[in-house]
Amino acid sequence: MDTVYKKSMEYHKKFGGKITTKALVNVSNKNDLSLAYTPGVAESCRAIVKNIAEAYNLTWKGRTVAVISDGSAVLGLGNIGADAAIPVMEGKALLIKKFAGIDAVPIVINTQNSDEIIRFVQQIAPNFAGINLEDISAPRCFQIEESLQNIGIPVFHDDQHGTAIAVTAALHNAAKVVKKPYRSLKVIIVGAGAAGISISRMLLGLDCFGKKCLRNLNIESVQDVILVDRKGALYSGRDDQNIYKQVVAAMSNKSKKKGSLTQVVKGADAIIGVSGPNTITEAMIRDMSVKPIVFAMANPTPEILPDAAKRAGAYVVATGRSDFPNQINNVLVFPGVFKAVVQKRLKIITSEMKIATSRTLEKMVKNPSANNIIPDVFTPNLADKVARAILRLTSGKKGL
Amino acid sequence: MDTVYKKSMEYHKKFGGKITTKALVNVSNKNDLSLAYTPGVAESCRAIVKNIAEAYNLTWKGRTVAVISDGSAVLGLGNIGADAAIPVMEGKALLIKKFAGIDAVPIVINTQNSDEIIRFVQQIAPNFAGINLEDISAPRCFQIEESLQNIGIPVFHDDQHGTAIAVTAALHNAAKVVKKPYRSLKVIIVGAGAAGISISRMLLGLDCFGKKCLRNLNIESVQDVILVDRKGALYSGRDDQNIYKQVVAAMSNKSKKKGSLTQVVKGADAIIGVSGPNTITEAMIRDMSVKPIVFAMANPTPEILPDAAKRAGAYVVATGRSDFPNQINNVLVFPGVFKAVVQKRLKIITSEMKIATSRTLEKMVKNPSANNIIPDVFTPNLADKVARAILRLTSGKKGL
Repeated sequence: MDTVYKKSMEYHKKFGGKITTKALVNVSNKNDLSLAYTPGVAESCRAIVKNIAEAYNLTWKGRTVAVISDGSAVLGLGNIGADAAIPVMEGKALLIKKFAGIDAVPIVINTQNSDEIIRFVQQIAPNFAGINLEDISAPRCFQIEESLQNIGIPVFHDDQHGTAIAVTAALHNAAKVVKKPYRSLKVIIVGAGAAGISISRMLLGLDCFGKKCLRNLNIESVQDVILVDRKGALYSGRDDQNIYKQVVAAMSNKSKKKGSLTQVVKGADAIIGVSGPNTITEAMIRDMSVKPIVFAMANPTPEILPDAAKRAGAYVVATGRSDFPNQINNVLVFPGVFKAVVQKRLKIITSEMKIATSRTLEKMVKNPSANNIIPDVFTPNLADKVARAILRLTSGKKGL
Repeated sequence: MDTVYKKSMEYHKKFGGKITTKALVNVSNKNDLSLAYTPGVAESCRAIVKNIAEAYNLTWKGRTVAVISDGSAVLGLGNIGADAAIPVMEGKALLIKKFAGIDAVPIVINTQNSDEIIRFVQQIAPNFAGINLEDISAPRCFQIEESLQNIGIPVFHDDQHGTAIAVTAALHNAAKVVKKPYRSLKVIIVGAGAAGISISRMLLGLDCFGKKCLRNLNIESVQDVILVDRKGALYSGRDDQNIYKQVVAAMSNKSKKKGSLTQVVKGADAIIGVSGPNTITEAMIRDMSVKPIVFAMANPTPEILPDAAKRAGAYVVATGRSDFPNQINNVLVFPGVFKAVVQKRLKIITSEMKIATSRTLEKMVKNPSANNIIPDVFTPNLADKVARAILRLTSGKKGL
């Protein structure tokens, strides 16, 4: 454990980060300069004045996205601020480049005021084909994403949707492994932040936008989901639930169970941790139903380490990390999503597109087993397959 | 002329812009992923939480600058807005990479409200070692730069300072060519925007910050400078001059000449155009003193084309363009300036540093002649020499 941290620090120091910029064109003589810069460049400016969409064709905008965070909820480290969030955003930009072959720029914002963040993203939006919102704390992240979508900016808050898409795929396969029908699973979600809320919405088959969950999607859904936050189970009518928790509480926990995680986890088929280190104990797993499914996804330190979970009887164990089996990580999702966004200049990723992505990941695992419920992130062409699943749902016309 | 525009458009379309991002590290297996991303990356985050300056060592911040514009004064094209400014900012980022070997990110801002621009730059500042403000209209550019410097953000408005530095170097050498003492030149500056104001300040040897010109620098300066805007010569007491024009009017045009460019240009030794196409005529040049010096620097279309200027008797002619001799272009300046900013984490570029840069460019021309008053932009190690000239004036300590 310490080794990976030590090695990673050395490696960040050695290269001074992980990405660089590169010229696509020669600048070796005056002729080159007159094409890349003045006077030639003026013609591209004039073309964009005439038709704003030409910026996609004549600049890097058409193949570049931004990874934007305010540093308020970084990994499981919490609110570490803008500067300290740069390594994660740069890592994400690196992965978009590596897995999707498109360009990405890491940007941290030195404010945590939601209105300022919305305004900032609106101001920076013309530079990019899409924007990956990242590591913004709940419930602010919901309002920020909703506001930006309402003004037509192509944003995707990966902590919500990327996580929900990957977890839903993995849970389908885990159900096959433990031989229980997916829809009959009793699922406990630990953590009612961005990921927890979004996972619950997808497991319940809800089509939500911002605060509102509008309708049931025509998909197989889990009937029994309970979200748990620091104060215990969410249920309809509980005090001190923000509007997002209220909405999901009303649509989950149908038997209105109350109490702590230790109390409500009894008899559950699956526990999904999207909270922080050490919130799931061996005792809890021993209290679950037969063949417990444990997804301990906090990063970098999971809710329970895989060894301990197995010792307590977990049948299927997954984490978000690269150094354990069953890595349920957003890297399965966001490169392909942004590949699709770039290719068709999508303005929005619909619930149907998210479901299609999840289904694609699920089906890529041909023979699910305890250590194989989700595709390896290095599966060849994975991002391509995700992008194609999304683009199949578009009309064939570009978003502009 | 049309050819260079046509070729440039084709070339922008072919590559989809001019820069790309590139991975500095391998991401080929789970081990790589655990170093670049979770869990390993968390250690770099923690190190920055402890010491914010570690972001320079552990992320691309330490070698990356931003080129930021609101699109309000792009080349000589005017206020073409954010989207249409992207090709120029991307070009500038390309040149910083090519000439200084450091990384640069083009950013346009979708607002032209000065307070919003200041706030935006403040919010994005943690990502970068320095910020090149670009193509922001006067007099807003002065206030924006001053406000950002006051809050400690390392900004350099290239249209002001880059132009002034290059012009001052070229004018020194042009004076040698026409065998007139630099300090005795009668200089007319056409255009009292960002470049015009900044050139006049440097030629007059003034140390200015924002609105205020605080003191005379201990350098050789031109005694007779007249700025001309659309309404004619600037002079102390003229109506309708903004505060920046008022300050420079009080310190220039000592004989308080009034009237149009045609009137005040009579007998001048040098005319420096930083305005727009076709504002200098052959008749004006014929009215100047012996061996007229003509810098026609509007981009992409100069105030007068070199052939016409020569026909009218101009002895030394320069433009901002790559396709004529004597290219007085900021590309001589900004790559080296940002190389210095990155190397020593400078927070401010002082007037002394600007003078040192200008002197370095001047001295790189060993034997000035009519077609050789400024170094070729492809002179080997030019940016290095500029950076060293600046760094000689620093204490040896880093800015942080």
